[in-house]
Amino acid sequence: MSLDAVLARIDADLPAATERLLELLRIPSISTDPAFKADCERAADWLVKDLQSLGVDASKRLTPGHPMVMGHVPGDGPHLLFYGHYDVQPVDPLELWDRDPFDPQVEDTPKGRVIRGRGAADDKGQLMTFIEACRAWKAENGSLPCSITFFLEGEEESGSPSLVPFMHAHKDALTADLALICDTGLFDSRVPAITTMLRGLLGEELTITGPDKDLHSGMYGGAAQNPIRVLARIIAALHDHTGRITVPGFYDGVPEITDELRAQWDGLGFDHTAFLSDVGLGRLAGEDGRSALEMLWSRPTCEVNGIIGGYTGDGFKTVLPSKASAKISFRLVGTQDPCAIRESFRKMVTEMLPPDCTVEFTGHGASQAGSFDTSGPAFEAARQALSDEWPDPAAYIGCGGSIPIAGHFQDITDTTPMLIGFGKDDDQIHSPNEKYDMESFHKGIRSWARILDALT
Amino acid sequence: MSLDAVLARIDADLPAATERLLELLRIPSISTDPAFKADCERAADWLVKDLQSLGVDASKRLTPGHPMVMGHVPGDGPHLLFYGHYDVQPVDPLELWDRDPFDPQVEDTPKGRVIRGRGAADDKGQLMTFIEACRAWKAENGSLPCSITFFLEGEEESGSPSLVPFMHAHKDALTADLALICDTGLFDSRVPAITTMLRGLLGEELTITGPDKDLHSGMYGGAAQNPIRVLARIIAALHDHTGRITVPGFYDGVPEITDELRAQWDGLGFDHTAFLSDVGLGRLAGEDGRSALEMLWSRPTCEVNGIIGGYTGDGFKTVLPSKASAKISFRLVGTQDPCAIRESFRKMVTEMLPPDCTVEFTGHGASQAGSFDTSGPAFEAARQALSDEWPDPAAYIGCGGSIPIAGHFQDITDTTPMLIGFGKDDDQIHSPNEKYDMESFHKGIRSWARILDALT
Repeated sequence: MSLDAVLARIDADLPAATERLLELLRIPSISTDPAFKADCERAADWLVKDLQSLGVDASKRLTPGHPMVMGHVPGDGPHLLFYGHYDVQPVDPLELWDRDPFDPQVEDTPKGRVIRGRGAADDKGQLMTFIEACRAWKAENGSLPCSITFFLEGEEESGSPSLVPFMHAHKDALTADLALICDTGLFDSRVPAITTMLRGLLGEELTITGPDKDLHSGMYGGAAQNPIRVLARIIAALHDHTGRITVPGFYDGVPEITDELRAQWDGLGFDHTAFLSDVGLGRLAGEDGRSALEMLWSRPTCEVNGIIGGYTGDGFKTVLPSKASAKISFRLVGTQDPCAIRESFRKMVTEMLPPDCTVEFTGHGASQAGSFDTSGPAFEAARQALSDEWPDPAAYIGCGGSIPIAGHFQDITDTTPMLIGFGKDDDQIHSPNEKYDMESFHKGIRSWARILDALT
Repeated sequence: MSLDAVLARIDADLPAATERLLELLRIPSISTDPAFKADCERAADWLVKDLQSLGVDASKRLTPGHPMVMGHVPGDGPHLLFYGHYDVQPVDPLELWDRDPFDPQVEDTPKGRVIRGRGAADDKGQLMTFIEACRAWKAENGSLPCSITFFLEGEEESGSPSLVPFMHAHKDALTADLALICDTGLFDSRVPAITTMLRGLLGEELTITGPDKDLHSGMYGGAAQNPIRVLARIIAALHDHTGRITVPGFYDGVPEITDELRAQWDGLGFDHTAFLSDVGLGRLAGEDGRSALEMLWSRPTCEVNGIIGGYTGDGFKTVLPSKASAKISFRLVGTQDPCAIRESFRKMVTEMLPPDCTVEFTGHGASQAGSFDTSGPAFEAARQALSDEWPDPAAYIGCGGSIPIAGHFQDITDTTPMLIGFGKDDDQIHSPNEKYDMESFHKGIRSWARILDALT
């Protein structure tokens, strides 16, 4: 076989590959909202059919939530497993989208061609880079290069409630030599990356109740507890004036990065001013005395993702509300224990409640941070393959996001995860107007072809 | 003429009067929401027609917002003006209503018969008490007892933006010997009241912007400003640990009540435990060292009426939002200057903003507190008339709410306001399941007949 022939076929097939991705993007597979359950099924069905067209014995595997898509092709050489997710984030605020998020299209922008739509970068566009590489490989060579298992999830954006039980139940089928995960980004548009550190995630929702009904603020204001004020006090107390998080025991297990890693990160020349100015900001807002890459890759965080209480419509209503609630997430690093932090957080909140107020908590996922061994020869081979495709050599980097599946492969199936993806910082994943650069898509497909070649 | 005959007619006509009120309650005249503009017009038209049936030359007077209803009947004796408002509060959260808020009905409850529906107590039921008293009077006597001007507003629940310009433009028509305002409550179910102190109201809405778009909290969390956290810090800082409001200069013009008034209020035997337990609370939450009636009638407050930011739907979304906003209202007393407080509040908020955040303010009404002269003989006559109708003698009381119109009559038309109403603490005005007791409605109508008799 010839890698050049596969790459040439990828180039020639790009318009058709783009059409296939647009078709998948048209399915509004929002996993967190029950209203889109049938659409998640449709996305799974679409992928099953597409994988079957490559000769994979793919099928939909039911879970208590949205289905998994699994399939396998036997072969010689290493056994590779590929993971991606077909579900997407909700689209609100819808009014900030320049187009229907589920009517995707290819657009020419000042920065180049992009594929615009919900899920373009996270993660449908990324998972299709691997499938398209396989398609080109098979078209040129008649078969895939080695034994490959495909494992596509539909609950990644809603905390993956079915994932761990499913992996335990299908442990043998999901054990491989290497788990390729395509849900991360480039370091920048010239530098591809293998992500070796991931933050964990702990999601908590809390609802504070004061009076048992909404009250008139003139009649009761000043004498009755206001749950919005109580919630604001709690949120304000979660950080001290240096930006450190005040939940007791929170920093247990947070390591300092090694001097060697610090030197490597400093060497990347990360331009945090440009990173922030892309989103209308100018200054780092996190912990005092930490560099931008430390804040983003190796330090834990606590962010409020949503808050609501009282009257939020047009105009004014002098209500003293019965309830106020917030969604809060913690990004975790090192060996921070999500369960211990959840317990400590809930205790801290409960202790801050004034008389007459109660709180209800809902947990939304709890995953530890991950740090992956890159010592095997496959990593150097993949890094070289990526370096061959992109202008500059590939880097080993951290990632601020949380990809619990990587840790699950380590823990449950003893399979080394390798995280490679082609997203860019300005892809606006989880935001209105999400896009995936055509360059990410095209060179992403080519990168996987090179990596398959290098690993087999 | 005979007062007894008028009272007997009121009793006999109560079912028909109730039907008329239900008809008015069916019109969803929510003034704060532009979607209900036509319904506000309909409510005004309904009142014009009803007043015309009493021989009043009523008409709808256009304003830039919702129309006023005005009408006059000439007569001998004092010139009385009557004020009420036909607009109502929004109804959300709708799911907490036990019935359609605009499909009102009479219900038997363990505490007696009530008229249930949005606006039943605030203020349609109350304004109809006066109109029904006039109807009975006219039916018995062929004419109303004196010169009366009717002045019904449709923007009271949305900050009365058109009121002051309208009063200036119609100053002569709105000048009278006494302005009767029916938008307050009884002291309790046995003790009627004339309200002589009202708190003022200042409404402020603020929106804090950090990043120029919603971000992924994994990608940016820890390094980018989170406007929800900024807003929470600001709200938390508005009160100190003793419950005092921290806006600089806020307490300028806040008087201590006189020993005499304190003694009178103490003598009322107000049961704050019952007051709070009605709404599921047990302890006073306001300023340290103040009694419940002080907190409710004579101390200023700062309450958050609504807050929203980020993802607030079902499930979880790890967004770092671009914006967060809150609606905050201040109840004012004494000679506190709403404009000076607005300025000081905005300055305080702006100074608390971290770099990279901006704030936008929207003002929602600003009215000073009112304190009304009760020395004229009309007050003692009205107090006696009320005492004749209810089990216990009437009291002069304060009110935590804000009724800016009372001050406008003093300032613009030099007309003494007299605030008499029949609402109860558990009417749930501004809340789901608003009601007006049939006793309030019936004895309210009878009270006005007695007051008209006493004043003419």
